[in-house]
Amino acid sequence: MTTNVRVNAGRLWSSLMEMAAIGATPKGGVRRIGLSEEDQQGRNLFRRWCAARGYAVRVDPLGNMFARRPGAESGLKPVLVGSHLDSQPTGGKFDGAFGVLAALEAMRTLDDLGVATRRPIEIVNWTNEEGAVFRPMVGSEVFTGAMPLESAYELREPSGETMKARLEAIGYKGERPLDPNDVHCYFEAHIEQGPILELERKTIGVVTGGIGLMWYKVTLTGVEAHAGPTPMRVRRDALMGAAEVALAVREIARAHEGGRGTVGCLTPYPASPNVIPGLVEMTVDLRHENGAELLRMDAAFRGVVAAVAQENKLASEVDLTVESPPIPFHPRLVGFVRDAAEALGFSHLDIVSGAGHDAFHMARRVPTAMIFIPCENGVSHNESENATQADCEAGCNVLLQAALRAANEASDL
Amino acid sequence: MTTNVRVNAGRLWSSLMEMAAIGATPKGGVRRIGLSEEDQQGRNLFRRWCAARGYAVRVDPLGNMFARRPGAESGLKPVLVGSHLDSQPTGGKFDGAFGVLAALEAMRTLDDLGVATRRPIEIVNWTNEEGAVFRPMVGSEVFTGAMPLESAYELREPSGETMKARLEAIGYKGERPLDPNDVHCYFEAHIEQGPILELERKTIGVVTGGIGLMWYKVTLTGVEAHAGPTPMRVRRDALMGAAEVALAVREIARAHEGGRGTVGCLTPYPASPNVIPGLVEMTVDLRHENGAELLRMDAAFRGVVAAVAQENKLASEVDLTVESPPIPFHPRLVGFVRDAAEALGFSHLDIVSGAGHDAFHMARRVPTAMIFIPCENGVSHNESENATQADCEAGCNVLLQAALRAANEASDL
Repeated sequence: MTTNVRVNAGRLWSSLMEMAAIGATPKGGVRRIGLSEEDQQGRNLFRRWCAARGYAVRVDPLGNMFARRPGAESGLKPVLVGSHLDSQPTGGKFDGAFGVLAALEAMRTLDDLGVATRRPIEIVNWTNEEGAVFRPMVGSEVFTGAMPLESAYELREPSGETMKARLEAIGYKGERPLDPNDVHCYFEAHIEQGPILELERKTIGVVTGGIGLMWYKVTLTGVEAHAGPTPMRVRRDALMGAAEVALAVREIARAHEGGRGTVGCLTPYPASPNVIPGLVEMTVDLRHENGAELLRMDAAFRGVVAAVAQENKLASEVDLTVESPPIPFHPRLVGFVRDAAEALGFSHLDIVSGAGHDAFHMARRVPTAMIFIPCENGVSHNESENATQADCEAGCNVLLQAALRAANEASDL
Repeated sequence: MTTNVRVNAGRLWSSLMEMAAIGATPKGGVRRIGLSEEDQQGRNLFRRWCAARGYAVRVDPLGNMFARRPGAESGLKPVLVGSHLDSQPTGGKFDGAFGVLAALEAMRTLDDLGVATRRPIEIVNWTNEEGAVFRPMVGSEVFTGAMPLESAYELREPSGETMKARLEAIGYKGERPLDPNDVHCYFEAHIEQGPILELERKTIGVVTGGIGLMWYKVTLTGVEAHAGPTPMRVRRDALMGAAEVALAVREIARAHEGGRGTVGCLTPYPASPNVIPGLVEMTVDLRHENGAELLRMDAAFRGVVAAVAQENKLASEVDLTVESPPIPFHPRLVGFVRDAAEALGFSHLDIVSGAGHDAFHMARRVPTAMIFIPCENGVSHNESENATQADCEAGCNVLLQAALRAANEASDL
């Protein structure tokens, strides 16, 4: 392993701050919504940086950008490294941008030191990962063939404008083929977006895969009635049923080691202080890294809803709205990340990604791994999102080592 | 007791149906919002019916209508009987209208049979009991001096129009003095708006008073975080705290015999399926007929919120927004109602009113009692609200007997 190369931490930080100035918010965050004018400016800056290094930038029909540093040998597929430059409406400086600019810094370092790689390395900037408008992770979804291009083109902003029209408006509808088969492997560095590394005092998260999730819409129907004259024993109170379901979701998550259970939305009707709610709609989000455990959580959850409904004399409906099984990353590439952290002397921890990433779509078609670095208090999707310069440097060095190793192997993974 | 007089059930029913045609909704309900054009039409019809019987109608500055059948002796204060003709936006045919038209039918019966009473009897139609716009029970609140007239005049509809302007617009801003001291006593007949009489198979509810209530706004503050990457053990989930509070409210109500506890509104923020709610606002409604018990419920509730907040690492705020102690009705008048039901051979039950009524304001200044009749499935404030002709007749006969007895006593209560 070429462990004597090191990235330029100051340059990485400067690039992060320069990118964060585009769409900067008064509270220190970033508003660079996918395919907005700010996104266009961010893309243009990234393209200028790549051009300055002589990397050829290609854009595919969905606006995904690929910047290539050539390899020494011909006919080998490139190692892809990157993430996304778009942000949440009130997002932070690091979510996405860190992965793209760490990839750029790694390649700049190779240039500075005159390090050649057998394979090309390409930096990717995925279109509209956040889904602040349109659909999240749509760039990698279309690139990997999980969604037809034409369907993505027809997605509409709240204003009614199509994704195709936005791509044309900002000048990022390109011609590079949508084909994951010409990629050797994919690495993505990202802030953790959770508190585990910080709590465990580790610098590098060796991401072993993506957590599996099931989303539900639960509807409980009872009988709306006046809060005053209706004795407790005759009530069919949908909100009390919903409260029981919410607490059961927490218990189920706690009972399945590593599981997570969340009720994010809960809406009672008619929502008047002196009316017993006759109807509640709620969302439930169950997650587990192990597919079999996730299915056991699903069964336990459905059982609880049925029991709560019966006990409270309610009707219940459980609609599975999203189902995404756990996604294991490529064990050998995960090993590259772990080895790099180890060789560089960084404390590290195997971790599962609880949030979604473009790497999940890629992992279904291409050998993939991810690198996490800590973020302050686990906060992301927030203007106060923060990461230290030292952690950014560490993550970037691990990314460089893992990508270098993959780029110097001629054989398929 | 003059138990040989009986009301004309068919005429009562016809009047109810004729009134229900004003503001009739396609689903069989009524939309006769206080001080609307439909309310004006309902008032005009009531005034024509009174005029046809020669009852002098006076209107006070807040639009409360008083129709007097004179007494045989001079210098005696009148017995007041009535309720309200306004409805909820999607209300029913009986809530309010039954009490006014039962009073009218009782007086028509006395006319038909040539029965004189020592005291005058006055029918009252209170302004805007429902509070669909403006404030509920504002007519009796101002009449009894609990709210200054000028404050009521400044109340505004959602459109911005003042109550004073609406009174002038429909021609019901009158001159009768706002003075409860010129009233001997007050009876109000009403549908129960709850399921107890129906469940217990009783015809007449002898209302012993109004339930006490305390309303709270509870705010629980935790930490908003991503549902995926945040382990259960580090969460500060405001919604789980709110669910625990809701179930505790139910337990507290169940543990205090006759108590009621309701969570009508519950709003998590930011309300996204994959975000752990960092904030929940909820309303809590606690009721008990016994003031000391209600205070014990209050103490238990405050203790629970504090304990839930501590256990879940949340900040909590409990604001008492409405406090209304139990209101006992006049024991002797309550006895008149019970005696009348007994003498007429109706099954009856002592009951506390869980809903609010103009009788609550009146009871603070004037000897007051109420008569309940069953309503189908306990449903009110709903277009499907229903009561049987037989129960309306029974309630009207009890009202007549109780009012007759009061109207033939010369002495103060």
